[in-house]
Amino acid sequence: MIRFECDYITGAHPKVLQALVDSNLEPHPGYGEDEYCARAAQLIRELCQAPEADVHFLVGGTQTNTTVIASALRPHQGVISTELGHIALHETGAIESTGHKVLTVPTQDGKLTAQQVEQICREHLEDEAMEHKVQPGMVYLSHPTELGTVYTRTELEAICAAAHRYHIPVFVDGARLAYGLAASDITMPDLARLADVFYIGGTKSGALFGEAVVITNDSLKRDFRYFIKQRGALLAKGRLLGVQFLALLSDGLYEQIGQQAVAQALRIKKAFQDKGWPFLVDSPTNQQFVVVPDPVYERIRQSYSTEHNGKPDPDHTAIRFCTTWSTRDEDIDALIRDIQAL
Amino acid sequence: MIRFECDYITGAHPKVLQALVDSNLEPHPGYGEDEYCARAAQLIRELCQAPEADVHFLVGGTQTNTTVIASALRPHQGVISTELGHIALHETGAIESTGHKVLTVPTQDGKLTAQQVEQICREHLEDEAMEHKVQPGMVYLSHPTELGTVYTRTELEAICAAAHRYHIPVFVDGARLAYGLAASDITMPDLARLADVFYIGGTKSGALFGEAVVITNDSLKRDFRYFIKQRGALLAKGRLLGVQFLALLSDGLYEQIGQQAVAQALRIKKAFQDKGWPFLVDSPTNQQFVVVPDPVYERIRQSYSTEHNGKPDPDHTAIRFCTTWSTRDEDIDALIRDIQAL
Amino acid sequence: MIRFECDYITGAHPKVLQALVDSNLEPHPGYGEDEYCARAAQLIRELCQAPEADVHFLVGGTQTNTTVIASALRPHQGVISTELGHIALHETGAIESTGHKVLTVPTQDGKLTAQQVEQICREHLEDEAMEHKVQPGMVYLSHPTELGTVYTRTELEAICAAAHRYHIPVFVDGARLAYGLAASDITMPDLARLADVFYIGGTKSGALFGEAVVITNDSLKRDFRYFIKQRGALLAKGRLLGVQFLALLSDGLYEQIGQQAVAQALRIKKAFQDKGWPFLVDSPTNQQFVVVPDPVYERIRQSYSTEHNGKPDPDHTAIRFCTTWSTRDEDIDALIRDIQAL
Amino acid sequence: MIRFECDYITGAHPKVLQALVDSNLEPHPGYGEDEYCARAAQLIRELCQAPEADVHFLVGGTQTNTTVIASALRPHQGVISTELGHIALHETGAIESTGHKVLTVPTQDGKLTAQQVEQICREHLEDEAMEHKVQPGMVYLSHPTELGTVYTRTELEAICAAAHRYHIPVFVDGARLAYGLAASDITMPDLARLADVFYIGGTKSGALFGEAVVITNDSLKRDFRYFIKQRGALLAKGRLLGVQFLALLSDGLYEQIGQQAVAQALRIKKAFQDKGWPFLVDSPTNQQFVVVPDPVYERIRQSYSTEHNGKPDPDHTAIRFCTTWSTRDEDIDALIRDIQAL
Repeated sequence: MIRFECDYITGAHPKVLQALVDSNLEPHPGYGEDEYCARAAQLIRELCQAPEADVHFLVGGTQTNTTVIASALRPHQGVISTELGHIALHETGAIESTGHKVLTVPTQDGKLTAQQVEQICREHLEDEAMEHKVQPGMVYLSHPTELGTVYTRTELEAICAAAHRYHIPVFVDGARLAYGLAASDITMPDLARLADVFYIGGTKSGALFGEAVVITNDSLKRDFRYFIKQRGALLAKGRLLGVQFLALLSDGLYEQIGQQAVAQALRIKKAFQDKGWPFLVDSPTNQQFVVVPDPVYERIRQSYSTEHNGKPDPDHTAIRFCTTWSTRDEDIDALIRDIQAL
Repeated sequence: MIRFECDYITGAHPKVLQALVDSNLEPHPGYGEDEYCARAAQLIRELCQAPEADVHFLVGGTQTNTTVIASALRPHQGVISTELGHIALHETGAIESTGHKVLTVPTQDGKLTAQQVEQICREHLEDEAMEHKVQPGMVYLSHPTELGTVYTRTELEAICAAAHRYHIPVFVDGARLAYGLAASDITMPDLARLADVFYIGGTKSGALFGEAVVITNDSLKRDFRYFIKQRGALLAKGRLLGVQFLALLSDGLYEQIGQQAVAQALRIKKAFQDKGWPFLVDSPTNQQFVVVPDPVYERIRQSYSTEHNGKPDPDHTAIRFCTTWSTRDEDIDALIRDIQAL
Repeated sequence: MIRFECDYITGAHPKVLQALVDSNLEPHPGYGEDEYCARAAQLIRELCQAPEADVHFLVGGTQTNTTVIASALRPHQGVISTELGHIALHETGAIESTGHKVLTVPTQDGKLTAQQVEQICREHLEDEAMEHKVQPGMVYLSHPTELGTVYTRTELEAICAAAHRYHIPVFVDGARLAYGLAASDITMPDLARLADVFYIGGTKSGALFGEAVVITNDSLKRDFRYFIKQRGALLAKGRLLGVQFLALLSDGLYEQIGQQAVAQALRIKKAFQDKGWPFLVDSPTNQQFVVVPDPVYERIRQSYSTEHNGKPDPDHTAIRFCTTWSTRDEDIDALIRDIQAL
Repeated sequence: MIRFECDYITGAHPKVLQALVDSNLEPHPGYGEDEYCARAAQLIRELCQAPEADVHFLVGGTQTNTTVIASALRPHQGVISTELGHIALHETGAIESTGHKVLTVPTQDGKLTAQQVEQICREHLEDEAMEHKVQPGMVYLSHPTELGTVYTRTELEAICAAAHRYHIPVFVDGARLAYGLAASDITMPDLARLADVFYIGGTKSGALFGEAVVITNDSLKRDFRYFIKQRGALLAKGRLLGVQFLALLSDGLYEQIGQQAVAQALRIKKAFQDKGWPFLVDSPTNQQFVVVPDPVYERIRQSYSTEHNGKPDPDHTAIRFCTTWSTRDEDIDALIRDIQAL
């Protein structure tokens, strides 16, 4: 069985793992107050060209989304997201568990639009009885999205401009940012300049675990360590996060991981395209959602693990193929051969 | 200005008010532990033919919805509702503020269907990663709905059967139950027999305020007074609720209020129908949502207050007319004359 | 049975009730957007000499405490209170249900001190790992306290000064403010000038129900109606609150109610003092907590309902006597005669 | 600087780290559904002699405490803990953030007593207005406690018996269980037999991170993975937890780590005892809290990092020394020499 079901099937990139091994016996203060975290944070500020940014390291994505969003909203506020947003669909109501509604808008390609942000904010303010409804208090978007699509810099600028017109901060979920950097014109400095807070995902692109939150909006910085601790997200051996991000973000490793996995995913994409099977969306990143006849799906699953993504009709199944830093070229080769033979 | 904007524009029905005046100087224990509450609860059990039911009196609708739903759900569960459900749209995220997601399904006429309940429950259980999604834990529906439509007994039976197949309790919001009793074949004993918990609305049909919660499912009864107190819903002078519901539910007053207001609303409905203007839905109760050309709306609003319900297109406006116990026949007459003259 | 167990055993003061009767059939907009609420709010601003204050009317005390406190705190903050504070002890964890810890300090007489506020704030800031602890975010105190004691203006000034040094707002629970005005040198303008938010209690001093929240700190004003609605505290027929507070605060009725009940309570106090029985505290208000031998308690409870307040030792019981606007002089006379005869 | 400030200053025990390295490139399903987690869970069931137990792996202590407690309580319930309990004092109100009060009882030595549990439960049930107070819903205790003290099996049996008489489950926080196993007569099978849920701490005794929750009470097992996910505690690469616990709990490593660190800590203890300086409590585990004159503290801190634990009087400071798996004998030797020389 060759595994393509997700981008967290293996451990850490060898360079990241080696850094953990090398530093293992060093004694350091706990809770992220060590020199590795300090150095990793400084590196991130430099990569983002954001010398004033606050940087915090958390363990996982749901934890990070919940901590950031709950810290930013007042009790009567909700967070705008597409209906496919990870926080809306796949986090067991973690946002609601902190008291806040996810204000969802429809999407076909997984992307939020500036028009949707504008409309939901304007409608709320124009409502005669607006205090009977949840007030929009933050915009959440994933880049790449949950469907693998990406925003352009122009699109992100428009979304942020719309949100900021209504004094609402924008939070970019960068769980798969490595793959987004490889497939869009949005850079880390763009994110730092445009969004109010975003995170650089480690778990899905080379780390054992870890997400680096970058806060550029001053009003979101205050007391953030309290929120991390309260959400159970302050890792005792915080140095593990510093060590990993330092390795991951040094010497272009993060970009390289993203580019390689995207290139592999596009090979899979082309193989299916050549067979004429459609995709849920046109994804330029490491996630590919192809729609295949059910007998084909049965054939594929005998040798390859994928993620089931629903049945668009009774005879077809949508399946997701993911690549990541540890995906081997020979496994891609084998898959392509098998696709061609279908 | 004649007011048709809602069904809470006046105080209490004279008989209810008189009961408050008559009992005003009597000393009674607080927090609903008085004899009026005991007698009103007993009367409700009789009217519902539910001798084992627990009855609690709360002040308002949002408070009641939140208290009931938060008491029934475990942290990872959500409540199924239509997208137009009062809890989904008009309570400032009160349900979310207690940690729970409202799992919404689409609707045109404001009504939930048994098929929708069945589908959302089945899909959840069939999900490969179901613990990543909110688990359905309760069904919420309003009778009449937020659009004035009503369920038939057959429909309610089907919804309850679907929910109970998945071991999920059903909660009926009866904020406007008086009008539902006048316009559907569902009786109080039906509600007590089919639903797990429901409430008899007082605020919108003759009381100064007050909602009577009837719990028939034993598993929802335990410790309910704690939940009322925690939500700030345990009225110090609880006797005020007992006194009002005793008056309201005696001698057929509640049914009479519902019938009279519905008859008045249907006169308004017919007047608009005669003009050929369409309605958002075909409502048989005290709320009528008519869609009129904007110039007509401008004319109407000079003499009558209504609730604005959006603009279906740039040239038309949907407006709600409500009747209630205090609506005067002469005001209906005047409105009808003015409609005919439009 | 003559009832002295609490100050909410009867309905409304006749003048308040008459105002409700007189206005009963008038149609008004809902949710407190009527002219009675506007006039009552204006009257309160005048009585408080606080022309810029925001005034909101809520139904009950627990609801008011929860709404105010949850609106003011960020998620990592708690509210400072004595261990006997109503929010700490008698509200079923309503504050915690909104996500916040009550940071309690010990008390003998029910009163918080400026030194305690100073100490808890200073210790928090000096803590090496302060983000591991709840951050003080508000000060809560009741005037009169839960034991009937009162603050002096000097004491309140010191508490507010201490809190404000640490940028923490002060919230005064005035559920029994009528009795506090009668027994301390603190006036409504003092409260408006010193506290950031407080409320004028109606339920326990002449209204059927109702608490008037006065917000003078601008940062606490924003979006407050959202919080009221979300907590289920926005009364549909809001005019009932405006009507009652307008009657209660006109022509010195509120002060008169307070003074009369306090005078009655002090007569009870003297009767017990003359018998040599001690009190839990030296209360100058309408609540008197006397400690009597158990056989005496058994005799008293045959004719008078009181509130049981624990057993200081195996042979004695602490009981509370309350007076209110409806307490009759002849009942006080009877009680005193019986005390003397004990 | 030699670090004794806490037991999470280094990475993982070499055997644990090696297991991570060895399995790093193996592809496995995410979210703990891999074979390492299955094998580790099975090993724990065997070590606990609890074949029916559910075992779940979480990342950190605060996260684990919050997830377990919030999953067990209904909204009106609180958790009993000593005032020094980690959940009461050092988790930024994480329990309250889920809506629940921590019902604290006083302690000198960090230990809860069966009498305290009995009393708080009995008093609650005897209260005339019990629904105005938070209902006890779970008992929390740490073994070893936050002060390093331990329970005896007899004490734990009494606590559990008291709680179970009131139908309340007992949760044992085993963040430092390795050290407790080395210093008390309580075994893993005892915990599985007596408590309803407990956890085996990894972070503080040899793992990079990780806590293994063992649930033996059936009513607490249901849907637990939902709670883990909702709290952001479901590690994507869950295999990391299985791999670590498998290594940690094999071949007696866990017990060995506990015994060695405790022996080292007792050497430190003896050195201070020989100097005549008192301890906050008589701890038999890896945490030692000694009270030293301030000049001594100044001397110590020049070479050794410790945790500041308050000033019992103006001239003395309480400091904590911790040992762990990576503590070196030569560092203990050096410290003892320096103590003797003080």
